[in-house]
Amino acid sequence: MNQKNCMVAQSGGPTVAINASLAGVIAGVAGSSVYHTIYGSLNGITGILNNDFINLTELMEKDADNLTRLAQTPAMYLGSCRYKLPNYLDDDSPYVFIFKQFADYNIEAFFYIGGNDSMDTVLKLSEYGKHIGSPVRIIGIPKTIDNDLCETDHTPGFGSAAKYIASSLLEIAHDTFIYAVKSVTIVEIMGRDAGWLTAASALARNSYNTAPHLIYLPEVPFDSEDFLLDVKRLLFERNNVIVAVSEGIRDASGNYISASEQSVDTFGHSQLSGAGKTLEFLVKEKLGVKVRSVEINVLQRCAAHLASKTDLDESFALGKKAVALSEEGVTASMVTLERVSNNPYEVSYGYAEIKHIANEARSIPLDWISPSRNDIEQPLIDYLAPLIVGEMPITYQNGLPVYMDVSHLSKH
Amino acid sequence: MNQKNCMVAQSGGPTVAINASLAGVIAGVAGSSVYHTIYGSLNGITGILNNDFINLTELMEKDADNLTRLAQTPAMYLGSCRYKLPNYLDDDSPYVFIFKQFADYNIEAFFYIGGNDSMDTVLKLSEYGKHIGSPVRIIGIPKTIDNDLCETDHTPGFGSAAKYIASSLLEIAHDTFIYAVKSVTIVEIMGRDAGWLTAASALARNSYNTAPHLIYLPEVPFDSEDFLLDVKRLLFERNNVIVAVSEGIRDASGNYISASEQSVDTFGHSQLSGAGKTLEFLVKEKLGVKVRSVEINVLQRCAAHLASKTDLDESFALGKKAVALSEEGVTASMVTLERVSNNPYEVSYGYAEIKHIANEARSIPLDWISPSRNDIEQPLIDYLAPLIVGEMPITYQNGLPVYMDVSHLSKH
Repeated sequence: MNQKNCMVAQSGGPTVAINASLAGVIAGVAGSSVYHTIYGSLNGITGILNNDFINLTELMEKDADNLTRLAQTPAMYLGSCRYKLPNYLDDDSPYVFIFKQFADYNIEAFFYIGGNDSMDTVLKLSEYGKHIGSPVRIIGIPKTIDNDLCETDHTPGFGSAAKYIASSLLEIAHDTFIYAVKSVTIVEIMGRDAGWLTAASALARNSYNTAPHLIYLPEVPFDSEDFLLDVKRLLFERNNVIVAVSEGIRDASGNYISASEQSVDTFGHSQLSGAGKTLEFLVKEKLGVKVRSVEINVLQRCAAHLASKTDLDESFALGKKAVALSEEGVTASMVTLERVSNNPYEVSYGYAEIKHIANEARSIPLDWISPSRNDIEQPLIDYLAPLIVGEMPITYQNGLPVYMDVSHLSKH
Repeated sequence: MNQKNCMVAQSGGPTVAINASLAGVIAGVAGSSVYHTIYGSLNGITGILNNDFINLTELMEKDADNLTRLAQTPAMYLGSCRYKLPNYLDDDSPYVFIFKQFADYNIEAFFYIGGNDSMDTVLKLSEYGKHIGSPVRIIGIPKTIDNDLCETDHTPGFGSAAKYIASSLLEIAHDTFIYAVKSVTIVEIMGRDAGWLTAASALARNSYNTAPHLIYLPEVPFDSEDFLLDVKRLLFERNNVIVAVSEGIRDASGNYISASEQSVDTFGHSQLSGAGKTLEFLVKEKLGVKVRSVEINVLQRCAAHLASKTDLDESFALGKKAVALSEEGVTASMVTLERVSNNPYEVSYGYAEIKHIANEARSIPLDWISPSRNDIEQPLIDYLAPLIVGEMPITYQNGLPVYMDVSHLSKH
């Protein structure tokens, strides 16, 4: 068989945009004069190890709507994994098997869509491929709601999560204003080490709404006494105080404000919960005011009905770009977004070497955070604002969004 | 002044439809040949006691889009209260003041939009009004996400909350399917005494998704051992088990499965939290499987961006109906919905005497719940399905929904 094929997989935590990137890869292959078939590996690279594939080219041919529907479907169509490849110098057996699969399926290029940890896999596969002189191009496509990948202006999945956070804060604000009694509402938002998503809550502020009134990010030390003073001061000026807080806030010694569920995942990340709850109890105990906490939880990363069109269009374009770059021979890289201008908002697509990216995390620049450590500065708002613009024309049936059939995952 | 005016207020917990009912009342008065001005009392009836009003007729004249925008705005435009009128035989002072305000403002009819507790206020005002021979018509307009008001087929606000729950369950399901490892996801849904909203999670089931796999409602005793057996059995058949549980589930003795935050509000209702968290810990301890809980929290009652068009149209129509009934002299009543047919779905608008409604709560009929107490029957699904149909054409600006300016509430 002289066909040149591609393979793609998804990995890490879900976003509402990762299937748009997958759709972009599929569209890129469909429009390519070089490639024939795109295979999807189920559950990240473990699908390659388990011989678990889907022929995505055939899947798209079944229904003309499938590509669009796929792009708008939340979570990962191909499933995910949190599998960390060993160092090939310690154990090269998975590598040998993976590259044999590449050979058997005539794979010219492999695309891995994921976050930091997935880029580590791209780095490792690239290094091994180079080591054995393999021609297979290995390209990473970014993904994360945390927006913390280096070398790219922002990441697919972030804009939609930010839109969800900002819309939810606005709706929570409306909900909070109805009672003419003093109250504090603490909203806990995802963000283990970077506060980008929590900062996006500021976009809810408008001509009649000043909430969130306080924003606490993991980039700066959190002080409980300062927090209580901030809240007390605001309660003099207004009835309802709304606080946005990142799940990853920590004190000056680096201890998370709450780590009640101290379990650790495969990559060594602490499983956090409870910063909002902890602050709720603190406010109740020290200030005695009516207080509630809202943990936005998983909904902020899978609410595809409120995806950002800017985000999904860019995610799709990045998938296509990865395919185009692989045709040019680019490898050991991640596709990237560069912001050409903000007003009007314009981006361009490029790539960066994977060694600069894997296992690095990008935090908010400190001068974008207020010196009082409880708010953000205008440059950060200007950075965030264009990313949430535009709504997806989701199809509804019987009152529910129409997403891709994921029987291949759900029936296990 | 010979003008005949009306007054309206909102009370209790918010929904995404209560402003649609308010808009319906305003539209009813605007189209009336009898009434001139509609005044809104801020923060429920406490606005009448504090002389805190808005001229809603003037407000609508300021901008042609205001009525539509109001109908689509979450929470309560007029603010809310949880104030319980005393028995007038014990203390008639608030009543004397309220009816004097009615006289001063030439109020012919007073509309109170709210749930069970608000209907108690309608009952009390009606009884006092009758006692003093007042001609003021007092009419209640139903509202609650719990769907537990008697005499009406369903309640405004419920359909939208149900749409949000069903859509979220579908999106959570997509999120859950991505890992090929055993896991349990417990979704805690609002519903202190009635399981209508939790039951709506079943609408997420479709051709590829069977979740939620288990549904636990407060109408039937919850047994922890049976629950664990249910989960264990399902984990043999599939990787990902998703459970929908009402916040108000209780054991055979009537004790809530969790009552960690045992505070009590003005009407004597326990403030519940933690059924989902309690079950998460139970599963972790007894089954040792990966488990997480999601408490949907306040978002299920204020996510106006995902409102049900069926719900909002009916809520608006009920507001108009209340005005029309007041012109006919109806008083001491609540407007109601009657389901004429299900296929096609059709309703009619009527009213019922308030004494049959106030302080009563309507639960799910037991034959609509599975004998195994962990699922619901087809008649309940058929009842729920039409209520979530249709989407509202929300206006977005800069990526966020455009709602009514609530400065009059938010600046306090």
